Amino acid sequence: MTLRGFSFSSVEAAIKKPGRKDLALIYSEVPATAAAVFTTSSVKAAPVLVSREHIVSGIAQALVVNSGNANACTGEPGMIVAQDTTRLVALALGVETSAVQVCSTGVIGIQMPMERIQSAIPHLVEGLSTGTLADVADAIMTTDTFSKMETCSGQAGGVGYTVSGIAKGAGMIMPNMATMLSFIITDAAIEQNFLQQTFRQAVDASFNAITVDGDTSTNDTCLIMANGMAGNPTIVEGSSEGNAFAAILNTVLLSLAKQIVKDGEGATKFVEIRVTGAQNYSDAKLAALAIANSSLVKTAFFGQDANWGRIFAAVGYSGAEVDQTRLSLCFDDVCMARNGIFAGDDAEARGTAVLKQKEFTVSVDLGIGIGAATVYTSDLTHEYININADYRS
Amino acid sequence: MTLRGFSFSSVEAAIKKPGRKDLALIYSEVPATAAAVFTTSSVKAAPVLVSREHIVSGIAQALVVNSGNANACTGEPGMIVAQDTTRLVALALGVETSAVQVCSTGVIGIQMPMERIQSAIPHLVEGLSTGTLADVADAIMTTDTFSKMETCSGQAGGVGYTVSGIAKGAGMIMPNMATMLSFIITDAAIEQNFLQQTFRQAVDASFNAITVDGDTSTNDTCLIMANGMAGNPTIVEGSSEGNAFAAILNTVLLSLAKQIVKDGEGATKFVEIRVTGAQNYSDAKLAALAIANSSLVKTAFFGQDANWGRIFAAVGYSGAEVDQTRLSLCFDDVCMARNGIFAGDDAEARGTAVLKQKEFTVSVDLGIGIGAATVYTSDLTHEYININADYRS
Repeated sequence: MTLRGFSFSSVEAAIKKPGRKDLALIYSEVPATAAAVFTTSSVKAAPVLVSREHIVSGIAQALVVNSGNANACTGEPGMIVAQDTTRLVALALGVETSAVQVCSTGVIGIQMPMERIQSAIPHLVEGLSTGTLADVADAIMTTDTFSKMETCSGQAGGVGYTVSGIAKGAGMIMPNMATMLSFIITDAAIEQNFLQQTFRQAVDASFNAITVDGDTSTNDTCLIMANGMAGNPTIVEGSSEGNAFAAILNTVLLSLAKQIVKDGEGATKFVEIRVTGAQNYSDAKLAALAIANSSLVKTAFFGQDANWGRIFAAVGYSGAEVDQTRLSLCFDDVCMARNGIFAGDDAEARGTAVLKQKEFTVSVDLGIGIGAATVYTSDLTHEYININADYRS
Repeated sequence: MTLRGFSFSSVEAAIKKPGRKDLALIYSEVPATAAAVFTTSSVKAAPVLVSREHIVSGIAQALVVNSGNANACTGEPGMIVAQDTTRLVALALGVETSAVQVCSTGVIGIQMPMERIQSAIPHLVEGLSTGTLADVADAIMTTDTFSKMETCSGQAGGVGYTVSGIAKGAGMIMPNMATMLSFIITDAAIEQNFLQQTFRQAVDASFNAITVDGDTSTNDTCLIMANGMAGNPTIVEGSSEGNAFAAILNTVLLSLAKQIVKDGEGATKFVEIRVTGAQNYSDAKLAALAIANSSLVKTAFFGQDANWGRIFAAVGYSGAEVDQTRLSLCFDDVCMARNGIFAGDDAEARGTAVLKQKEFTVSVDLGIGIGAATVYTSDLTHEYININADYRS
């Protein structure tokens, strides 16, 4: 599978410290139809503010991204850095400044070393002839232990196209919005409004359904660029090809989201939390997130302790409508509790066996309606504390 | 200071396992004016449901409490245990069943060993001649590493009275409501409505202002009994003696609440989070709680990392109205950030020195209004995970 018309580059700009590539570029030969979803936090990093302004055009042709410094809580000087970065990249590439997106991830509250970025940009543009998307995926890692990529292909009007995505994130993962950074590129031609709408839906079902520690970042950005160089007839809403594209997009995003959870800082477990029988969808999501964000529940997962009572306790304070006499809970296919009470001693041993697996599903039936929601999370471990206690040093 | 008319007892009922006193009794010679605040969780333990019904009378003469088993998620059998326990204690003491409060703390989802409780009750009542309030404080501990007590004295109409309180709680601590169990007794005579109202206010400013891990228990109960045996003229609302009593109550509850935070599971730090300049009180509390509940912030406290950016990030997603260009932050008297940006390198070293202390204050000024709120929290440590990963074993 090839992605026509895209090229990639990464260089070492020594933004935090030397020794790794920390500045990367994605470039499309032609202006691409683009859409983006940004952090909902009231404290937004400078690059988020700049990119949000640029995306209004619906067009992007380049993305410049760095790790090592978030350029958040940096005030007016930080804004100037983000603006200058897009301007310099636009100049070097010969594209519109408003067609350049900029993203940053790393430490909050420290000014960006602009002179180092400025001197790295020419090398970054030269490198476009030889780089790969995997190079970009590597360059945006911070506490990630592996880089995240996914690719799927589709067809429209007899013409094949490819959708590829990369993501970065391991902690500070929380719905609305989840991954710190994710970039999706496709050579398909997609109608602008349809792209925006289908992308937002796919983000909701993937990055907004994962949670590692309940924190939301100042820098979260999810961007898609569709440059149309596959040559397919433009994909529009309501067509079978539109539905197929939406399905492919969901697959790519959900795969990236699950990779982020699996790389949850210090995680040893991957847990799917499925809540059914809620009064409505929003109650189901409230309950699922309360379970997924409970430190007590997540620590029990780490301890492989089939402590279903803590899960009911989390459902109880979630804010969802609950009748405690109708709650049921299973670990995979082992029913631990029915109608609010323990299912019996045999369940204890079998439930514990499920929790010893690296991946399992917690199903909670609230028993009062048809609302359902699924979220993905990890356990809370010693390693999480190690990573975050000395992240800045 | 003596508490006239109260007696205490504790015995070993081997509810979870033998080897410690786990069943306790507080008894007042005469029916006491009483008020209680219970967990807001939709999943309520059986003893909470029973006590909530009994407190409607406004009278309590005895409290029976056990550790080792929460009697939560135990269905109808659990309800029968809680009801039978109050009935048997009432019978042995010769008081009304509705004047007996019952509380439980411990593992969720396991049926109570009623036969052991039943055979322990006679010994419990016999022991009233020799027990102390400290014995009760010891018997209600679960993961607590020390028992929590506080006593203050006051005067009304020239007659001295005493207010004593005990509390139990170290994890599952979260506002609305915070401590798992706290019992306050006084020999003062207090008017019923005033007692209820002043008690609720004191709970809001103390137990509802602390948070260790953001989880809320199924069993939280805070109870006050005022038996009037000091012989003072009844204290009523609006009087100077009423104000003095309210102040004493606040002191006792805040002291107990702070003791709980200091005993936060695995905690090595005690942190006061003070938010000012918010649009209103509720925004201030939202922001303070977002900081206090952030795993990333709490892990940075543990790592003694002056990572003020994470605190701004938490304020950003708290839901409070925020203008990121007006945020300021201090660790004790060291200003780390002003108008949203870093205050300079000198601050880094001085801020880190503050975080090396066992106790410090984080002050965040949102800079847009006059709303203020204070909450108390601890850090997130390896020991928290050790305690909670194998709590049930």
